[in-house]
Amino acid sequence: MSDATSIAKAAKAAFEASQLIASSERVQALSEIRKELEAAKDAILAANRLDLEAAQKEVDAGRMSGSLLKRLDLNKGDKWDSMLQGITDVAELSDPNGIVSYASELDDELELYRVSCPIGVLLVIFEARPEVVVNIASLAIKSGNAAILKGGKESNETTQLLSKAIQSALSKTSVPSTYIQAIQTRAEVSALLELDQYIDLVIPRGSNSLVRNIQNSTRIPVMGHADGLCSVYIDASADPKKATRVAVDSKIDYPAACNSAETLILHESVLPTIWPDVAKALLAADVTLLCDPPSLAALQDRVPASPQVLPAPPDAYTTEHLSLTLSVLTVPSLVAAMAHINAHSSHHTDCIVTEDAQAASVFCRGVDSAGTFVNASTRFADGFRYGFGTEVGISTGRIHARGPVGLEGLVTYKYMLRSTGGEGHVAGEFGAGEGKKRFKHKRIEASAVPF
Amino acid sequence: MSDATSIAKAAKAAFEASQLIASSERVQALSEIRKELEAAKDAILAANRLDLEAAQKEVDAGRMSGSLLKRLDLNKGDKWDSMLQGITDVAELSDPNGIVSYASELDDELELYRVSCPIGVLLVIFEARPEVVVNIASLAIKSGNAAILKGGKESNETTQLLSKAIQSALSKTSVPSTYIQAIQTRAEVSALLELDQYIDLVIPRGSNSLVRNIQNSTRIPVMGHADGLCSVYIDASADPKKATRVAVDSKIDYPAACNSAETLILHESVLPTIWPDVAKALLAADVTLLCDPPSLAALQDRVPASPQVLPAPPDAYTTEHLSLTLSVLTVPSLVAAMAHINAHSSHHTDCIVTEDAQAASVFCRGVDSAGTFVNASTRFADGFRYGFGTEVGISTGRIHARGPVGLEGLVTYKYMLRSTGGEGHVAGEFGAGEGKKRFKHKRIEASAVPF
Repeated sequence: MSDATSIAKAAKAAFEASQLIASSERVQALSEIRKELEAAKDAILAANRLDLEAAQKEVDAGRMSGSLLKRLDLNKGDKWDSMLQGITDVAELSDPNGIVSYASELDDELELYRVSCPIGVLLVIFEARPEVVVNIASLAIKSGNAAILKGGKESNETTQLLSKAIQSALSKTSVPSTYIQAIQTRAEVSALLELDQYIDLVIPRGSNSLVRNIQNSTRIPVMGHADGLCSVYIDASADPKKATRVAVDSKIDYPAACNSAETLILHESVLPTIWPDVAKALLAADVTLLCDPPSLAALQDRVPASPQVLPAPPDAYTTEHLSLTLSVLTVPSLVAAMAHINAHSSHHTDCIVTEDAQAASVFCRGVDSAGTFVNASTRFADGFRYGFGTEVGISTGRIHARGPVGLEGLVTYKYMLRSTGGEGHVAGEFGAGEGKKRFKHKRIEASAVPF
Repeated sequence: MSDATSIAKAAKAAFEASQLIASSERVQALSEIRKELEAAKDAILAANRLDLEAAQKEVDAGRMSGSLLKRLDLNKGDKWDSMLQGITDVAELSDPNGIVSYASELDDELELYRVSCPIGVLLVIFEARPEVVVNIASLAIKSGNAAILKGGKESNETTQLLSKAIQSALSKTSVPSTYIQAIQTRAEVSALLELDQYIDLVIPRGSNSLVRNIQNSTRIPVMGHADGLCSVYIDASADPKKATRVAVDSKIDYPAACNSAETLILHESVLPTIWPDVAKALLAADVTLLCDPPSLAALQDRVPASPQVLPAPPDAYTTEHLSLTLSVLTVPSLVAAMAHINAHSSHHTDCIVTEDAQAASVFCRGVDSAGTFVNASTRFADGFRYGFGTEVGISTGRIHARGPVGLEGLVTYKYMLRSTGGEGHVAGEFGAGEGKKRFKHKRIEASAVPF
């Protein structure tokens, strides 16, 4: 049996063994993990320094970006403390399992319940940010899923000690210690992607190409977290102040985030009115504008000449800049704006700035994206901001979970059917013919399964 | 541009163009389809006779099964009328779209709504049953998804005329006529499976190998409808009459269905008590029993010798018989029964027969299947029986939709965020620091989006 098979089998066994563990015991396990990490802090930070030293050499040699190095540092600012606080925060969220979403009396003494339950074994692949190990482990334990974790290789030393501490903490609880396992190599990932009999969901967080590569190499369902190509559309009826505020915030609040705007779409009627002020505010915030000919022409004589105002290159509207660069496009109508967004956006989050309620309604329904916003920055597309208390990521797929994903995205459901009396229930007695029973299908009000 | 690309692009365009079509117009379109099919009945049945004649030659030559031939016949019994009635039934179901499942006031005048909406373009692959074309077309139109349909090649003549009638009906409505397209060849399927930019979900109905082949060849999410390896477990505390009734019905009500039982698991304590009577009832219903040594021995002297009682071959517990054959296994405990089911079943539907409430509760939670039943036949696992009014199929996956899938399984959701006042909402004003706004996250009670 290969290593990957052993790991996957152990994860599935841990998952199955954990099905009857009470929610309170999961909370207890999270508390043990926090304690164990506190106790192991010095050793973990020492391992983190090894990762940092190795990374520094790569940066010095020009083979790694400084921002990757910064993300590796577990001792930076309040990162360590936030990581620990995150465990407690997840522990305090309400249990996503056991919630009844449909209940029906099919016949006298025959009750059906659709109830939320864990998915099974998760394979989570993420960047070189060691605190994510603890974050995902907490989410998995809270939601009742076993997890196999693979962080970026630059964080291997830290990841190893973090997962060792987690397993050590779990060994003191009723949650199996193989509930959370960390792997180190791409070869292990490749082998695990073959094991659809043990692994139920793959969650890759990273680039579009990472997500597509994984989708290409597995039968296991993939919940991808990839790029965002978000846009802000300034409608003919937009309020000028809202247009400026929303456009600027959507671009500059955190340009490297997937929910930042990459494209500004202008209704042609706002070119001489609102656009110059929006452009001035963006330029004042150091944004570079890649303009199509009409939007470029509209700035002439209205905005002081600037090296940050450039003609849009051909790929401007399909590029995720992730920086202080914004592509600008002019359209003749709301319909044209929606058509452009549906054809070019990544279906992540798109915003309309408008005072026209009808236009807002049409945009929200006609734009085929996970988030359709009115007069609000695309940056609000976020699990914490939405009020989920946590965020597994922002799903760029549209199956199972779409947009910011909270704990709910880590559960599925099952149907429990209970015959409570008589001689047991058999299907052959029901039907359309004479002497056959008819189904009652009477809705039951229930928030939990009563047995 | 290849044919497949044209088809996929047309489907996506039809989907996008249809986003603003009212529910009443979709219902109207279904009514037009029914009328058009009624008008084209003679031509469609003539085409169906061509398919039947070709199939008869294959059956005569021993290259096709008689049951496949029967399924092809659109004029058999009340099949034609039921097909038409099915359109009306789907039209009358409530709209699965526009339903709010989460609504929250993030800030004064900033409201978030999570609202159900169509998925996009479906690629549905199914067996040679021509009425499925009409059934799936109805479900797609009702749920707001465009669909590309591929039926078994043996039904090509019929399928072509059915989809022509559907398109002709749609051309008289506000639903684009390319909303429903039929394709004829596997080559087209292969080409479409590459086009994840246009196709959002693949729904294969058929064998496990069909589903796995498709999962192997596409990045598009797959909602598989494959085999069922269901079991009935007779617990130590089972009521004898319930045990017999449930075991017999689960096996014989419709042996070819995926929700029929393939394995009977016996607690060892019922071997001398309940098992002989259950066996007699099964034998009387012409069931062949493949028994493990303890269950075989228990029948000696208790049940008349029968050629239908056989020792279980090694693959008995991993075989979907789909016939009047049942594998029988003895276990020492409830825990052992659950372990066997989790390791061998297809996670479809499994039943416990018990009078012990605690055992029922443990079984329902510990068995990792889409359906966990107590004292009720596995045959109840069905969308119509569950009260959904329709059935897309029974999903053997656990992502997005699990078990019997109604219209709800054909929708996803999006987030609509609306700022209704002030100067528009920007994320940069929120945070933990001084002078920053805090999120309210106050639950809004709403069943529909108010704009």
